[in-house]
Amino acid sequence: MSMYPQSIQKLIEKFSKFPTVGPRTAARFVFYLLQTPEKEIEKLADQISMLKKNIKLCSFCFNPFQEEGNLCPICSNTSRDRSLLCIVEKESDLEALEKIKKYAGLYFILGGTLPALRKEDVEKIRFKELQNRIKNPDAFNLFGANFKEIILATNPTPEGEATALYLERHLKEYNTKITKLARGLPIGGELEYADEETLSSSLESRK
Amino acid sequence: MSMYPQSIQKLIEKFSKFPTVGPRTAARFVFYLLQTPEKEIEKLADQISMLKKNIKLCSFCFNPFQEEGNLCPICSNTSRDRSLLCIVEKESDLEALEKIKKYAGLYFILGGTLPALRKEDVEKIRFKELQNRIKNPDAFNLFGANFKEIILATNPTPEGEATALYLERHLKEYNTKITKLARGLPIGGELEYADEETLSSSLESRK
Amino acid sequence: MSMYPQSIQKLIEKFSKFPTVGPRTAARFVFYLLQTPEKEIEKLADQISMLKKNIKLCSFCFNPFQEEGNLCPICSNTSRDRSLLCIVEKESDLEALEKIKKYAGLYFILGGTLPALRKEDVEKIRFKELQNRIKNPDAFNLFGANFKEIILATNPTPEGEATALYLERHLKEYNTKITKLARGLPIGGELEYADEETLSSSLESRK
Amino acid sequence: MSMYPQSIQKLIEKFSKFPTVGPRTAARFVFYLLQTPEKEIEKLADQISMLKKNIKLCSFCFNPFQEEGNLCPICSNTSRDRSLLCIVEKESDLEALEKIKKYAGLYFILGGTLPALRKEDVEKIRFKELQNRIKNPDAFNLFGANFKEIILATNPTPEGEATALYLERHLKEYNTKITKLARGLPIGGELEYADEETLSSSLESRK
Repeated sequence: MSMYPQSIQKLIEKFSKFPTVGPRTAARFVFYLLQTPEKEIEKLADQISMLKKNIKLCSFCFNPFQEEGNLCPICSNTSRDRSLLCIVEKESDLEALEKIKKYAGLYFILGGTLPALRKEDVEKIRFKELQNRIKNPDAFNLFGANFKEIILATNPTPEGEATALYLERHLKEYNTKITKLARGLPIGGELEYADEETLSSSLESRK
Repeated sequence: MSMYPQSIQKLIEKFSKFPTVGPRTAARFVFYLLQTPEKEIEKLADQISMLKKNIKLCSFCFNPFQEEGNLCPICSNTSRDRSLLCIVEKESDLEALEKIKKYAGLYFILGGTLPALRKEDVEKIRFKELQNRIKNPDAFNLFGANFKEIILATNPTPEGEATALYLERHLKEYNTKITKLARGLPIGGELEYADEETLSSSLESRK
Repeated sequence: MSMYPQSIQKLIEKFSKFPTVGPRTAARFVFYLLQTPEKEIEKLADQISMLKKNIKLCSFCFNPFQEEGNLCPICSNTSRDRSLLCIVEKESDLEALEKIKKYAGLYFILGGTLPALRKEDVEKIRFKELQNRIKNPDAFNLFGANFKEIILATNPTPEGEATALYLERHLKEYNTKITKLARGLPIGGELEYADEETLSSSLESRK
Repeated sequence: MSMYPQSIQKLIEKFSKFPTVGPRTAARFVFYLLQTPEKEIEKLADQISMLKKNIKLCSFCFNPFQEEGNLCPICSNTSRDRSLLCIVEKESDLEALEKIKKYAGLYFILGGTLPALRKEDVEKIRFKELQNRIKNPDAFNLFGANFKEIILATNPTPEGEATALYLERHLKEYNTKITKLARGLPIGGELEYADEETLSSSLESRK
């Protein structure tokens, strides 16, 4: 039971819901704010309160964006390859792929993973939305798209792999080529500690 | 260079200033907020903006509090022992000591540590404030206080130790007994890996 | 299933039994030996094979030693305080305490801890031996000893604490003062993360 | 300065030279041996002393082996593909690759890496030996070998990469195809934390 005053305690509870934040870190956030000038705090509160008003989700890929229109800058960019669709778990994965500047196709943000294949889990990710967009991209303002390859770019974690497996099975019906990011030894890795799948893939894809 | 929209990018920068938060975690915070219902977000923005309006700092010990008056509940509690003053680095250290329910004296929150003993460092902590309060507690609304023991409860980290050393030297003139928290083996520790000071203290204070 | 040759595989198995060593590290040990000059290897094999021939266990405290006689240098040193007995789990704990040069009494090496209080566990540590030595030190060549304080210096781990509890209960009958190493904040620790017992002890033993 | 008896201290020093072993772990090894039955210890000393007598290094690939002849079981196995040569840093890397059962060519154990490209570093690895074996495998009992692909399977660590770079440059003259293990996302990895090379390679090698 904490002895902090109520206004502090309530804000600690709010910050504790932020991803990766426990009550101790949340308390540090509040004490940091207590030492921050009033003006700065007002700005922060303002930006938080305006965030959802300023930001829209792309009507095709669910990428958050700020520009005019219904499509994000990637989806509305007609010089990108509209025959390629890369499915990622979340926004920061999309950004990681954009940063390497090797991919010129489109994306779809699934909004999560399937820890298990229960029906209620499937409803938490944007799987129906994905199906609708693959079937009829025009209906979501992405005119002229016709996907010839769907890249499953979920993370190679257990949840990501389970999600990829689910997608693979249920996207078969669209008769589109489905690929997955290659497994391999990462920079800094060691053969001796690599799992067999990683090492096999690393050997087979050698070049 | 990030490709996030400006409203997101600016909020990432704000959250990156929070203690322990880097740009990746800050991004996760923003995406978390984007998925949070508008109502919840409004509440959060409100609580942040009201925080400093609701919370005062105790005129004696600098503990944040919400009640009426100038003194926090600890300082205004006349049943506490006003001959004991425990100096802590920060608010969460005060709370850690209150939780064990073994200390009934007063506190003073220093607001930081001295990484080095330069003059500009000393000005960043509340050292002058501490001197004034020890000399004349009545002037800060703490009537009848007369400190017979000052407990230096800074952390046993290098910065905390340097701070304790500085305080010890500069509080001597008040002719008050100055003590420090005992060093010892913590729960879960091992003799073999303990430093010599910790082990010596653990042996000498055996009981 | 490994493909290493049998001589290597068998030595890997032997090294895998060493404390903290898994099969991978054990393999690295063997490859290290394969690259070591024959002469060096012979020396190592020799030293290993002579170890138990060169080393005796002290007839009183079970400390390994090499000198003449039945008692180790600590037990045979008549200038040490024979009214103090410090019980440690293992040899390296004794050495840790000797290093701080603050303790001039005698030791007893228990040879393990009690993970649980089953009879078969108690038989694995030197508890009967301890009882016999407290009752009649003369019978173990420690003439003139008369213990006025028994220091339980097991580690503050769950196993060490359980062992201390067992010893405390079962050594009561000798009507000797029984003490334990003090708990406290170790160097590098922080108030905020300390458990309550550690912090309480640290506060109570302040000086 | 340790107080352990000389026989113990000397063995601690020997074990401290083992890879990954510091003085504390080395001490634990010795105390483990002191508690091991004499018979077991004799066996260990024996196995250590016989190790280099039982084990030969393959005259072609330097893999340690125990069988008759000059070639290890891999090199003497005529059903393996003698047009493929895979260069690894050390024995355990060879074993890691054998375990996945996807590679049927030959190996060469370099015996180390090049932390920097100084001449004395190059002399510490088996680079001349490698050149001789590529030029004329017959001279090393590997009849009928004719390498059409050399796979650089050094680790993707900075040292391994520097070594691969050196090998690539200096093996060019043999006009053999030179390949490297593919980089990619390992099992358990995450897009967001992958370096750009890893992610690019993972995307390009998708399938």
